[in-house]
Amino acid sequence: MKPGTRISFSYKGQQLAGTVINVEHGRLVIKLGSGYNISAAPDELKEAKELKEGAERSRQPRKAEPRAPNPNLPTIAFLHTGGTIASRVDYSTGAVTAQYTAEEVLDLYPELLAIANIESRLLANIQSEMMRFSHWNLLAEAAEEAVKKGADGVIITHGTDILHMSAAALAFSLENLPVPLLLVGSQRSSDRPSSDAVTNLLCAANFIAKEGKSFAGVAICMHEGVRNDDCVILPACRTRKMHTSRRDAFKAINDVPYARVSYPSLKIERLREYPSRPEGKLELKPFDEKLRVGLLHVHPHMYAEELKAYEGFDGLVVSLLGLGHMPTMRTDEQNAENERIYAELQRLAAKIPVAGAPQTIYGRVDMDVYSPGRQLIEAGVLGQGLDMTPETAFVKLAWLLSNHKKGLRQLYAESLRGEISPRSEEEGFAQP
Amino acid sequence: MKPGTRISFSYKGQQLAGTVINVEHGRLVIKLGSGYNISAAPDELKEAKELKEGAERSRQPRKAEPRAPNPNLPTIAFLHTGGTIASRVDYSTGAVTAQYTAEEVLDLYPELLAIANIESRLLANIQSEMMRFSHWNLLAEAAEEAVKKGADGVIITHGTDILHMSAAALAFSLENLPVPLLLVGSQRSSDRPSSDAVTNLLCAANFIAKEGKSFAGVAICMHEGVRNDDCVILPACRTRKMHTSRRDAFKAINDVPYARVSYPSLKIERLREYPSRPEGKLELKPFDEKLRVGLLHVHPHMYAEELKAYEGFDGLVVSLLGLGHMPTMRTDEQNAENERIYAELQRLAAKIPVAGAPQTIYGRVDMDVYSPGRQLIEAGVLGQGLDMTPETAFVKLAWLLSNHKKGLRQLYAESLRGEISPRSEEEGFAQP
Repeated sequence: MKPGTRISFSYKGQQLAGTVINVEHGRLVIKLGSGYNISAAPDELKEAKELKEGAERSRQPRKAEPRAPNPNLPTIAFLHTGGTIASRVDYSTGAVTAQYTAEEVLDLYPELLAIANIESRLLANIQSEMMRFSHWNLLAEAAEEAVKKGADGVIITHGTDILHMSAAALAFSLENLPVPLLLVGSQRSSDRPSSDAVTNLLCAANFIAKEGKSFAGVAICMHEGVRNDDCVILPACRTRKMHTSRRDAFKAINDVPYARVSYPSLKIERLREYPSRPEGKLELKPFDEKLRVGLLHVHPHMYAEELKAYEGFDGLVVSLLGLGHMPTMRTDEQNAENERIYAELQRLAAKIPVAGAPQTIYGRVDMDVYSPGRQLIEAGVLGQGLDMTPETAFVKLAWLLSNHKKGLRQLYAESLRGEISPRSEEEGFAQP
Repeated sequence: MKPGTRISFSYKGQQLAGTVINVEHGRLVIKLGSGYNISAAPDELKEAKELKEGAERSRQPRKAEPRAPNPNLPTIAFLHTGGTIASRVDYSTGAVTAQYTAEEVLDLYPELLAIANIESRLLANIQSEMMRFSHWNLLAEAAEEAVKKGADGVIITHGTDILHMSAAALAFSLENLPVPLLLVGSQRSSDRPSSDAVTNLLCAANFIAKEGKSFAGVAICMHEGVRNDDCVILPACRTRKMHTSRRDAFKAINDVPYARVSYPSLKIERLREYPSRPEGKLELKPFDEKLRVGLLHVHPHMYAEELKAYEGFDGLVVSLLGLGHMPTMRTDEQNAENERIYAELQRLAAKIPVAGAPQTIYGRVDMDVYSPGRQLIEAGVLGQGLDMTPETAFVKLAWLLSNHKKGLRQLYAESLRGEISPRSEEEGFAQP
């Protein structure tokens, strides 16, 4: 069986279909519709049959007819950066690689042209985990340019690994953004039958076309669940990738989505107040590309050396245990090292901003309840009372170091882009 | 108003009650029933009234009548280590401190004596975030001793910050444990009206009394939700604290609880197969207290120095992005630093075991799908195909380094204590 052949077969009692990738050590490697590979001995495959094209066909690019802009439709700037949404499977190796150009991605989804006039631009072809601050600046500059040219909204296609952090970075760097900017990724590459790229993109474009006048700012558009194809519009600074592989990996943290966009009906249901159009002028405040900001996940049996590594850095986020604690106290002869850790923390926090965030992901840091937390406050650790994820804390600290070194401590504690929620009744006062 | 006075009052339209802690800068600091403090100017408190004892009384220790062991009841060894479950509020400072002795905790809950004969022992009085490997060994030794003396089950009261990691540590170090060992914490200190200590403890003791013959191994007993007082029995190596403050902070990750214990009915509902009594002999395999194992949460715009810090370490867990990636590739002139990071990773992984785990928390590492993942496999990073949290990966790696340096790479990939689940249909083959 040649690589690329599509077959259906029975495997351990299950009826499956997939594409042959290659033969390794006498075993067939087959990529299933789900995107996962199985490796099976030939005699484990029962009733194997070659499939003709069409049985479970994936999307293949077809050239969209060029047409003149429709003056009745809004204009959306599509900025492409690579990632799974712009990837296809290489059936000779089984690898997934980012390789679609901006035009090819658009050719995959000619439905978009009925929703808006699309201005497409390829900014980069990069898996998001390789991005650095310079890439965030590149995206922010391109978005600013598109908005200044008159776009009614912006869609950035993006790898999913750090999509939530890029969303936060853009929310901070594009001050007074007057239109919606949606980051869209997919968990399955665009040429797979099971790809979520088309639904995520169509839902995003529809949201901008229908709600673009009443929504201004950065958000994320991804699948809501796995039972249907509905998408949600998630807050830029309060979302996190919470599963390695599921299509509904992105979850609002300590928050709810702005809206649900049903698919295929494309009906929009508002779930909370939208961020409204700002009065100020759009201003780009980029990241300082030379900054060194660390992110340390504290853990039991730590050593002071783990903190010392950040001595030459400009800032540090410590991802804290529980309400906001780390090993800092000697309570018996077994944990004297904890005192060295605390001394190192004091030294660091006297030199550079150190911010605490919850490694539980959900909830709010409250360093004021227990003595180990109060020790951190005394050392000058920022973050008391805040409910930002460690990832948002990292982005915000780096952005403040880049733009607001003066006043950083105060601005860190204020909600600048909706990244902090006021202490709620449910959580604080009246928790059951 | 004196510290310690209980008052009811109206504050910003809400009817609240709490205990006066002190006056700071002319503002009253009041600890609410929920455990949170509010700080209010005197004129913000309307209709303030002193409460007589009894209105919303918290538990106060009363001396349990000493009595002879009941031969019809099972014997549970209670090992106390401190933490919130053994804490009370100091109303002169507002602080919460661990200060109950083992006997005092038992005196708080005389109901326990109707369920089992209790043998109580104070091992430590430590907030769990201060624990080091030596404390895990102390707990394992005490549990082993209790079981050898004939206990039908063990309950360890424990701080919540790293309760899930101590559970994993005990699961690994107590090989062939023939009885149930439950770790129990609470998110509200035992002397508060809203404390979850009593329900968590009673549910745990009941589970051991009723299911102790069919369940062997380590688990966690904590609140299931916030709507009622039901508890769940959670798997030791597949649970994580997922909220800073809620009573239902502990969640099974990539898994479901073993059972639900309803409160107050104490009815037990089995939710999945129990780990059965092992055939081998109980053996204590402690942690090497001199080991240095790191836990690095990778992030965009990293620097090679962040990895270099672990050069003198014995092992490292890298908490990876997405399916199992980190910044390792130069894709343009902006991210040349990523190549330095990869070179450093290669150097480290050639010297010490480096294991990858998902920072998404949920899901399974699959480094075989994208080229950045395959780079990690080539460097020798462990963890391919596994669904352990970074915290369980840390505990397991440290335990293997302590006990099974030979064969470590193979044992790391095997499920030794139920810490890895086989790739499921839903997740792998048939994900929608």
